[in-house]
Amino acid sequence: MSATRVERLRAELDGLGAESFLVTNPTNVRWLSGFESSNAALLVGRERVVLATDYRYLEAARAVEGVELHEAERDVAVWIGSRLAELGEEPVAFESDHVTVARHEALAAGGARLVPAVGTVVALRATKDEGELAAIRSAAELVTLSFEALVEHGLVGKSERDLVWLVERTMREAGAEAASFDAIVGAGANGAVPHHHPGDRVVRPGELVVVDAGARVDGYCSDCTRTFATGPLPDELARAYEVCKAAQADALTAIRAGVNGRDVHERARRVIQEGGFEHLQHGLGHGVGMDVHELPVMREGVDSILAEGSVVSVEPGIYLAGLGGVRIEDLVVVRADGPEILTPFTKDLVVLDG
Amino acid sequence: MSATRVERLRAELDGLGAESFLVTNPTNVRWLSGFESSNAALLVGRERVVLATDYRYLEAARAVEGVELHEAERDVAVWIGSRLAELGEEPVAFESDHVTVARHEALAAGGARLVPAVGTVVALRATKDEGELAAIRSAAELVTLSFEALVEHGLVGKSERDLVWLVERTMREAGAEAASFDAIVGAGANGAVPHHHPGDRVVRPGELVVVDAGARVDGYCSDCTRTFATGPLPDELARAYEVCKAAQADALTAIRAGVNGRDVHERARRVIQEGGFEHLQHGLGHGVGMDVHELPVMREGVDSILAEGSVVSVEPGIYLAGLGGVRIEDLVVVRADGPEILTPFTKDLVVLDG
Repeated sequence: MSATRVERLRAELDGLGAESFLVTNPTNVRWLSGFESSNAALLVGRERVVLATDYRYLEAARAVEGVELHEAERDVAVWIGSRLAELGEEPVAFESDHVTVARHEALAAGGARLVPAVGTVVALRATKDEGELAAIRSAAELVTLSFEALVEHGLVGKSERDLVWLVERTMREAGAEAASFDAIVGAGANGAVPHHHPGDRVVRPGELVVVDAGARVDGYCSDCTRTFATGPLPDELARAYEVCKAAQADALTAIRAGVNGRDVHERARRVIQEGGFEHLQHGLGHGVGMDVHELPVMREGVDSILAEGSVVSVEPGIYLAGLGGVRIEDLVVVRADGPEILTPFTKDLVVLDG
Repeated sequence: MSATRVERLRAELDGLGAESFLVTNPTNVRWLSGFESSNAALLVGRERVVLATDYRYLEAARAVEGVELHEAERDVAVWIGSRLAELGEEPVAFESDHVTVARHEALAAGGARLVPAVGTVVALRATKDEGELAAIRSAAELVTLSFEALVEHGLVGKSERDLVWLVERTMREAGAEAASFDAIVGAGANGAVPHHHPGDRVVRPGELVVVDAGARVDGYCSDCTRTFATGPLPDELARAYEVCKAAQADALTAIRAGVNGRDVHERARRVIQEGGFEHLQHGLGHGVGMDVHELPVMREGVDSILAEGSVVSVEPGIYLAGLGGVRIEDLVVVRADGPEILTPFTKDLVVLDG
């Protein structure tokens, strides 16, 4: 149990008009308590914290300090619902962006007064402590290793799927718990599809290959992208690469604690537009932590202040339908005086024609 | 779009008192339409099917036949909510076990009449067609390959984490899209914890090692367990293995279309109890398909009829705290005259003392 994090959540109770907070999102449960389970809930009151889980996880739960442990019947939400009036200090805030309509019925069945809360713990998670940053830094280093493996093994003649496996294998063998998401390798025209599913397409000479990957270490994710060339490129692709690189560099100069994510997005968008390409279709970046997409965001029309100690991806992209795509993505820690870049791999165009 | 599956869903509308069905669970969307996206919804009416997704997936969505395609703004549920009265035939059933309280507000905002539905599509998914069975069969074969790799490489002296990686690497290199869940390797006393997180614990001679793994092929999962010995065992563990094996064999003889899962569970429980061990703490088994845990279930106190063409795990376990555990799990197809076993790997005790 992290006393600091629990206190940060307690500080939200007044604003919510609640006396206790029921945490059911497993990632939020883990962030607060260190306890990992598919079926657990935390009830954080003013003075005490109740942890409920089922018998499968009970042994592991005994290691969590500073909580009252309860064994729940199968579905922890149903069980909590039946005991909420007794266990919780009312009104009880609940995660209305996680609790389903059906589970809400079960929670409400016991008659406790419930207050919906959206994004409360997720917002607290946006600011990382040094332990969390260390895990994310390690996870980012593993992606750099996988990019180095691509340089070593080459791309031409290999399928997208082969390259995904090379990337994931490299990260796992170097210590990743898992990939933080299914890696994307988009060769040639496939690189113009941001959420391309890698397949049998074989990499050919003279095209761009987008590689977007992440690792998970101690429950924390990384997310990094580089785009490689496999020989001399058509002019338009070569220009797209340079414009994307300039947009990414310009966005980085704007990142520091206190700036608004939409303004950073706008800078990258403008560089891309002035370079003669269509502006970003997707947001410039997003927070990364226990989830690979979390707060803050850098996106058109969304106010999201970058706090010191948050971690964001910075990933402009240019997508030329039928021809190819470029995306260059660093993972950075937001510091008072600028970004700390966690992805040291070069952003100059790397040509792998072997 | 699978016309057969859409018709099966339409046949549920009368029972729900609905004129159309809004599918938001991405796995259910994929099952009905073949379309894979983190942000898509299907609105299945009496005559037509609407598919909504955002620009990132629009290109891929054009390949889906037999639907009216709409581009939604960022969150598909919010967008659908604003258009539901116009697009849907009311009342509209929605997946109340998937839609969160916050999203429900967005859905309801447009004023459409909504009817909660729990588990409707999941129940339809329990009966697999031959194409689905072929994918699950392939996914199960990959686990058998990984067990053979363990036999070839041996266990003693390797860490649980090393063995997890050997299992996952074998499945991936033989064609798995991914592991269907994080494989479990529990050595010695760790085998007595059903949801053990594999770690640095090194396998020693003379103990049991539980290996529980699954692969994903074409979106379908497998889930299989074997328990290996690493030399002569203490009597109690040797007996536990034989009792667990007998319970598993006995349960298999009871499996055929039309039986109740709770009765099959009860048979295995009784064999374990008569063998002098504590009865099953967890259910005997669960359905496996696009999700690794789905319907039907075989569990104490839960009525769940096994339909022809469903796929279930059959996995009794005996857990001796501080000493070790045994779990033996086959994946089987429920047929009219008995189970078709998808996991041919031997259930005799394999001793790997090298």
